[in-house]
Amino acid sequence: MKQVPFSNIKLDGFWKKRFDINKEITIPTIYNRFTETGRFEAFKFNWKEGMPNKPHIFWDSDIAKWMEAVAYTIQLNPDKELEKIVDETVDLIEKNQCEDGYFNVYFTVVEPDKRFTNRDMHELYCAGHLTEAAVAYFNATGKDKFLNLMCKYMDCIEKAFITEKTARFSTPGHEEIELALIRLYRCTKDKKYLEMCRFFIENRGKCKNDNDCRNWTGMNYDQSDAPVRELKEASGHSVRAMYLYCGMADLAAETDDKSLFDACERLFDNIYFRRMYVTGGIGSTSFGEAFAEDYVLPNDLAYSETCASIGLALFAARMGAIVPDSKYADAAELAIYNCILSGVSLKGNSFFYVNPLEINMNRHRIMKEYYSSRENLLTHRLEVFDCSCCPPNLARFIASIGNFIYTCDENTVICHHFIESEAEFDNIRIKQQTGYPNRGDVRFSISGMKGKKFGVRIPGWCTYVSLNGKILDAPIIKGYAYIDISEENQVLDFYFEMKTRLICANPKVEDDIGKVCICRGPLVYCIESSLNGDIPLNSIFVDKEIKPGLEFDEEINAYRIITKAHIYSDESKLYYDVKDRKTSEKEVTLLPYYAFANHGDSDMKIWLRTE
Amino acid sequence: MKQVPFSNIKLDGFWKKRFDINKEITIPTIYNRFTETGRFEAFKFNWKEGMPNKPHIFWDSDIAKWMEAVAYTIQLNPDKELEKIVDETVDLIEKNQCEDGYFNVYFTVVEPDKRFTNRDMHELYCAGHLTEAAVAYFNATGKDKFLNLMCKYMDCIEKAFITEKTARFSTPGHEEIELALIRLYRCTKDKKYLEMCRFFIENRGKCKNDNDCRNWTGMNYDQSDAPVRELKEASGHSVRAMYLYCGMADLAAETDDKSLFDACERLFDNIYFRRMYVTGGIGSTSFGEAFAEDYVLPNDLAYSETCASIGLALFAARMGAIVPDSKYADAAELAIYNCILSGVSLKGNSFFYVNPLEINMNRHRIMKEYYSSRENLLTHRLEVFDCSCCPPNLARFIASIGNFIYTCDENTVICHHFIESEAEFDNIRIKQQTGYPNRGDVRFSISGMKGKKFGVRIPGWCTYVSLNGKILDAPIIKGYAYIDISEENQVLDFYFEMKTRLICANPKVEDDIGKVCICRGPLVYCIESSLNGDIPLNSIFVDKEIKPGLEFDEEINAYRIITKAHIYSDESKLYYDVKDRKTSEKEVTLLPYYAFANHGDSDMKIWLRTE
Repeated sequence: MKQVPFSNIKLDGFWKKRFDINKEITIPTIYNRFTETGRFEAFKFNWKEGMPNKPHIFWDSDIAKWMEAVAYTIQLNPDKELEKIVDETVDLIEKNQCEDGYFNVYFTVVEPDKRFTNRDMHELYCAGHLTEAAVAYFNATGKDKFLNLMCKYMDCIEKAFITEKTARFSTPGHEEIELALIRLYRCTKDKKYLEMCRFFIENRGKCKNDNDCRNWTGMNYDQSDAPVRELKEASGHSVRAMYLYCGMADLAAETDDKSLFDACERLFDNIYFRRMYVTGGIGSTSFGEAFAEDYVLPNDLAYSETCASIGLALFAARMGAIVPDSKYADAAELAIYNCILSGVSLKGNSFFYVNPLEINMNRHRIMKEYYSSRENLLTHRLEVFDCSCCPPNLARFIASIGNFIYTCDENTVICHHFIESEAEFDNIRIKQQTGYPNRGDVRFSISGMKGKKFGVRIPGWCTYVSLNGKILDAPIIKGYAYIDISEENQVLDFYFEMKTRLICANPKVEDDIGKVCICRGPLVYCIESSLNGDIPLNSIFVDKEIKPGLEFDEEINAYRIITKAHIYSDESKLYYDVKDRKTSEKEVTLLPYYAFANHGDSDMKIWLRTE
Repeated sequence: MKQVPFSNIKLDGFWKKRFDINKEITIPTIYNRFTETGRFEAFKFNWKEGMPNKPHIFWDSDIAKWMEAVAYTIQLNPDKELEKIVDETVDLIEKNQCEDGYFNVYFTVVEPDKRFTNRDMHELYCAGHLTEAAVAYFNATGKDKFLNLMCKYMDCIEKAFITEKTARFSTPGHEEIELALIRLYRCTKDKKYLEMCRFFIENRGKCKNDNDCRNWTGMNYDQSDAPVRELKEASGHSVRAMYLYCGMADLAAETDDKSLFDACERLFDNIYFRRMYVTGGIGSTSFGEAFAEDYVLPNDLAYSETCASIGLALFAARMGAIVPDSKYADAAELAIYNCILSGVSLKGNSFFYVNPLEINMNRHRIMKEYYSSRENLLTHRLEVFDCSCCPPNLARFIASIGNFIYTCDENTVICHHFIESEAEFDNIRIKQQTGYPNRGDVRFSISGMKGKKFGVRIPGWCTYVSLNGKILDAPIIKGYAYIDISEENQVLDFYFEMKTRLICANPKVEDDIGKVCICRGPLVYCIESSLNGDIPLNSIFVDKEIKPGLEFDEEINAYRIITKAHIYSDESKLYYDVKDRKTSEKEVTLLPYYAFANHGDSDMKIWLRTE
């Protein structure tokens, strides 16, 4: 099935607010930081040894993702100033592109003789992001200059890697070009780009020269330990893994390649059933920003990079478009509403690269002071990082959130996500009215679909669904309810009962044993000490059945959960009979995880003890 | 009150077995290791640069503690061979002692020009241990050569530090000489040694040149951050702290110094109520082998050195001899039966330096592999260490365990510890028949005490006591029951109800929150995965009221506890509703902590979850 693009969808409600903050605050903030750090200036190709702001190998990709975010934004909400910045940047690309089509700031101004010699240097990764931006900008504005420049660059890459094989490696150390080539193919219809994508994916894990051209030792760090069809576990650098899997899913879809799809599903299942935080965060270790082994999901040490969760959502959406199985959209939903939204502050001007699932500042201090722990702790979002991949990635993700809602073919439209919006495509109109993610009511007002089927995902968290006031009575296939649309204009009133739930983790996840996580709908909740009178979070526990109160919080645009917690009372003794252990009760306030660290530095916890 | 020395006590039962293993296995094992590593050879003073087995600054103390252990052993159980080794070693000391009385292997053969220049070099520490050995050997054999050599050495030290002040520092970086001087004073009655002790204790924390003569930076590392009377928290290197506090308590007792005793009590209370593991282990951090701050008592990272617990028992016994308050003997008992006995294997031939309270081998591997943790893990005892202070310390401690049982003055005899034995002193005979530490029955058959009081400690773990079949009805002062002895021969049948108890920790101890420790009498129990079908110890929990079974284990000379535990069932899902969480039941076997790691490498846990 094909995705209904965000450009056919007018957002409203929860995501419209996020879109507006993204446009008004996030995109300008990133622009300012990228200007201050010399990233935009670098595109002038004026840097010389000894000058400040030496271009970095991944700066091209930072600018590219920002331009892509602008493209999506102005497609829905034109803005001449933003468009002008992109046009000027494209002019610089045109001016500084090599005659043979090559374009890379670092490998032109810093190490011009090292072109295509080291697969770890993000060269094809940058090419991929620039290409994604070029496609997006063409779609947004109809201007084809950027697109043509990138086609020329891809032709240069094709020559170096495939036709003439002058490149010293075969496949990139950081994947991204694969999925970009599919986008370029879909935009230009030029099969050459599909074949290039196939080349990079099929050769991965098979080429000796790839192993020679690397800095990092672990063979699975960049998913080169085996041919892609033989990969069984999601491993290595988690962002690289996600971008590869996206490319694999795209190629499988375009070429109807069952075994490649099966490999993708195997990798997805490994993540979803064994290697994903409850927030949709992935890549639990900072060592290689990588997946650890099954069930290794520590909370305070979580790496859980924002970009990795974005990658998971993109991968899951591609899989769900091929085979509508609700596990894909369930995973994407967890990532979107938790780890990804956590990546940006409510105000939109600061960012998490790493998204911990627990902050215990005193424990952290003690571990540093007495046990020589090397872990780092960031308790608040920053405006800029040296490695600033996440902020523009968030900006382009939020601007194009509409992509996630619908897929369709001639006979069927499927709704994967519940987002207040109006969609128009293929003579179909679907107005979606919903209080999601805070309420479980979803009204679809549909026209132009008479005689077709409408598939609606039953969210994994939901145990009771009604349609038009009655218990849902429709065929459910892999988590989607399929409704025959019999009227030219039809209204479907879905109700997904949204209760506060207590969930537990597989007991193989050591950090979570004997604990529960409080969730409501797609939102994972956390407790912050700063909002709860600085109670020590480690000494509270909750009952396994709670009677929560809800309190709407305008600032975070979601409910707070108010519930009773028990607190172990302090004692003068160090050890005493458990029968003498006393507890007190306290009402505590929980926030959606995405809203944590917006109220000052604080301890935070998702997984709470039960007793 | 004065201590009734071990030499007046004939051991039987539990401790007789330990004494025999100590004599037959431990002492020869240590002798062999010390011979192999060149420690005995070093006393020949033949070492030259370039030769193997370069003498180490603390080797003198290793040999000294071994000789002290032999002295205690042969005093109770003569052994010509062992005596001959000590005699030969004493001959070497005589032969190689400097003319002015100085004796130190390292500072004679390795760095002869550095005598008394660096307070961190264990010089006075070695002198102290040699002196303790000399006093013990004199008491055991009546031979005074060793004693006289050490008197001569102490006179040399007196000159360098007090009379002529040629030493570059005033007080030692590693305490020990203070308590040794008191022993020498008590043995020789020469007040000069009491005054030397007073000098080293009173000058501590007051001398600028002490701060200049050090390698280690932290001022509290060697308890030199303040004059001893002003110390409020047990801090720094825990063994050094204990030896200082022992010396302080001794000096307070000898000089009836109330403010010094108060300082000791303050330090003891800080340990007992805030800084001690449930096993009687102290010094929770490897960083400086030191006390961390209040309530910082992690289980898997525990340092908890054997020597530190020995020091705690020695310190507590001294305090309890001054003021019979059961907190002292309770602390000593915890240390003796748990952390200290854990320091040596059941067979007596291998040793723990560090005594962890939890072993999770998989977690440890994961922390190393994915989170660059620097922690080390030792899952089994070793025969020798480079820093081999603990093995001979254990040997001398076990050989002289009888010291802990009784203190007395003209009117009163106090029993602090329950140890099957016969004591004869001051025309008094006390036969103690008891199944301790496994049973709570204690029969005292007393003669020669008519008209005196007999004080018996009510152990802190005990809530029901009977005497001669009736509920105990005697005045209880600071945890001791005082019985008037009215017969020439009197039998007191005490019964301390010994139930399996579940205790909890102050909620400020983060690692232990929501957990319980299973204890019985003075013994802390632990669970080992190797004895329980390799169940993952982290996924079990126990009820807050258990109905344990007991099973006597001949090898460990104690009961195993058999109880029901719940195990979280494995699941295919990663996250699920807590209502769907399943558990199974399993009978599990717990061992006394002291017996852990005697049945192969295994995960181990003391603190178990409850739910």
